Amino acid sequence: MTRTQPSPRVKVGLLQMASCPQPRDNLEKVREGIGRAAEQGVQILCLQELFRSQYFCQAEDEAFFDLAESIPGPTTESLSALARRHGMAMVVPLFERRAAGVYHNTAVVLDADGTLLGSYRKMHIPDDPLYYEKFYFTPGDRGYPTFETRYGSIGVLVCWDQWYPEAARLIALGGAQILFYPTAIGWHPSEKQQDGAAQQEAWKTMQRSHAIANGIFVASVNRVGFECPPGGEGLDFWGASFVCDPFGGVLAEASGEEELVVAECDWGRIEEVRRQWPFLRDRRIDSYAPIVNRLLDCPPTS
Amino acid sequence: MTRTQPSPRVKVGLLQMASCPQPRDNLEKVREGIGRAAEQGVQILCLQELFRSQYFCQAEDEAFFDLAESIPGPTTESLSALARRHGMAMVVPLFERRAAGVYHNTAVVLDADGTLLGSYRKMHIPDDPLYYEKFYFTPGDRGYPTFETRYGSIGVLVCWDQWYPEAARLIALGGAQILFYPTAIGWHPSEKQQDGAAQQEAWKTMQRSHAIANGIFVASVNRVGFECPPGGEGLDFWGASFVCDPFGGVLAEASGEEELVVAECDWGRIEEVRRQWPFLRDRRIDSYAPIVNRLLDCPPTS
Repeated sequence: MTRTQPSPRVKVGLLQMASCPQPRDNLEKVREGIGRAAEQGVQILCLQELFRSQYFCQAEDEAFFDLAESIPGPTTESLSALARRHGMAMVVPLFERRAAGVYHNTAVVLDADGTLLGSYRKMHIPDDPLYYEKFYFTPGDRGYPTFETRYGSIGVLVCWDQWYPEAARLIALGGAQILFYPTAIGWHPSEKQQDGAAQQEAWKTMQRSHAIANGIFVASVNRVGFECPPGGEGLDFWGASFVCDPFGGVLAEASGEEELVVAECDWGRIEEVRRQWPFLRDRRIDSYAPIVNRLLDCPPTS
Repeated sequence: MTRTQPSPRVKVGLLQMASCPQPRDNLEKVREGIGRAAEQGVQILCLQELFRSQYFCQAEDEAFFDLAESIPGPTTESLSALARRHGMAMVVPLFERRAAGVYHNTAVVLDADGTLLGSYRKMHIPDDPLYYEKFYFTPGDRGYPTFETRYGSIGVLVCWDQWYPEAARLIALGGAQILFYPTAIGWHPSEKQQDGAAQQEAWKTMQRSHAIANGIFVASVNRVGFECPPGGEGLDFWGASFVCDPFGGVLAEASGEEELVVAECDWGRIEEVRRQWPFLRDRRIDSYAPIVNRLLDCPPTS
């Protein structure tokens, strides 16, 4: 049997950058990167998490709330014009000011005509040394939406979300063909030598597993460069942005330097892989309800 | 900070074998393998899926129901005596006859004193060319138990289950320190050259991801050898049994030949890894309920 329908191929781009101290410089850098992506024919471009600034969550400082902006707002207006000009859909991660005291780590989706299709608000918020995100970000309250762009149905999750199979599953059940992970993950300098390779490998393995379990493309974009606030230890962001296919095969992968990663995604592969490995057919949906528990730790005597 | 409690280390063994045509020969082979495992100090041993026979699901033939046995039954009695003699807990996968017309693909857990602690009945049943399991196996109806053995809390899932993150999650939420996957997976000879490496890599990636997402040890044991029923194409079972730690790092791994894989698991690593990467802390249990749906495909207009 062969496929009877043409298989749309979509060019996906990931803009992996080092961040400048000034937000205006990062916007300028992204606008320039979008130009390069357009030259390469990119149709869906994903920017890195919180791309307008350095990763300020290394410290808890309420002054950083000044970095937040409304959605729609200045960044979405600027990039929406470029989306329309280039006919390029975009995932635009922003520090969102929703209301006084309610800020989110958000990713906006712009369609290729510049329309703001909606946004995803990061659901899983980390809080670990140098990643003090629970101070800044109110957990998302709108679940796991998918967005119908001109080039295909996409889902977005953000960084820490990538460790949660439930989130990827819900995105896939919603019909996404590709799942983007804007990310900011790096090494603590003191851990890099001993644990760095294992951390990066776990990060990649986890995201490739979401592609496999769900039969969808996964694309993750991480920042690069060493960022160190005054008096801090700093974080060494490892880049390594990548796109993988619905069986976890890596289509394109960045180094630890600034790079525009481009990969062609053949949506027909989703149909092929899911016919050969029909995991979604056999899900035991009658048995998963207890997954909404924190733990299943009833006393053994009960 | 350092750990204040001693960290129990447990020796885990996986008996990867080629299967003989006669069930009695496989039992003999396993009894011999248990002896070798005991010499190496194995404390929890896992046998491969349906270890008493060749992988009969390559064809649909009701005569093969004769291979099924009751639990407890002759195999559990035989191995329970060895478990007691060697002080070794065991995972014993069997073709279970539960009642006329109700057969299961089951894994029994024996404690180190020979007690039959209980069993897991395979929940996700595949059905693909040469893996006609839906003909033979009634889907399990008792969910995802954990078992308290002398050496630690264990969970068992079987083969096709390994592609389902929900199943691994529920085992982990139940408190398992290690999750075993008795398995029978091989290449179709016609696919091996082109897709073999990608299939094996996806299989391993998926299981390592369960270790990472849940902060538990994972151990998978697969058979080896080419098994071909008369007139069939046959399956080339790839072995590659492995044990990985709670961050997905491979501790021990077999080739494609017969092998007893032995790895030492330090239960203290679970505590360490979950402190450093506290994924279970941040699960958004308020948001996962829709995972019990087949798909989330409401019409876009609703």
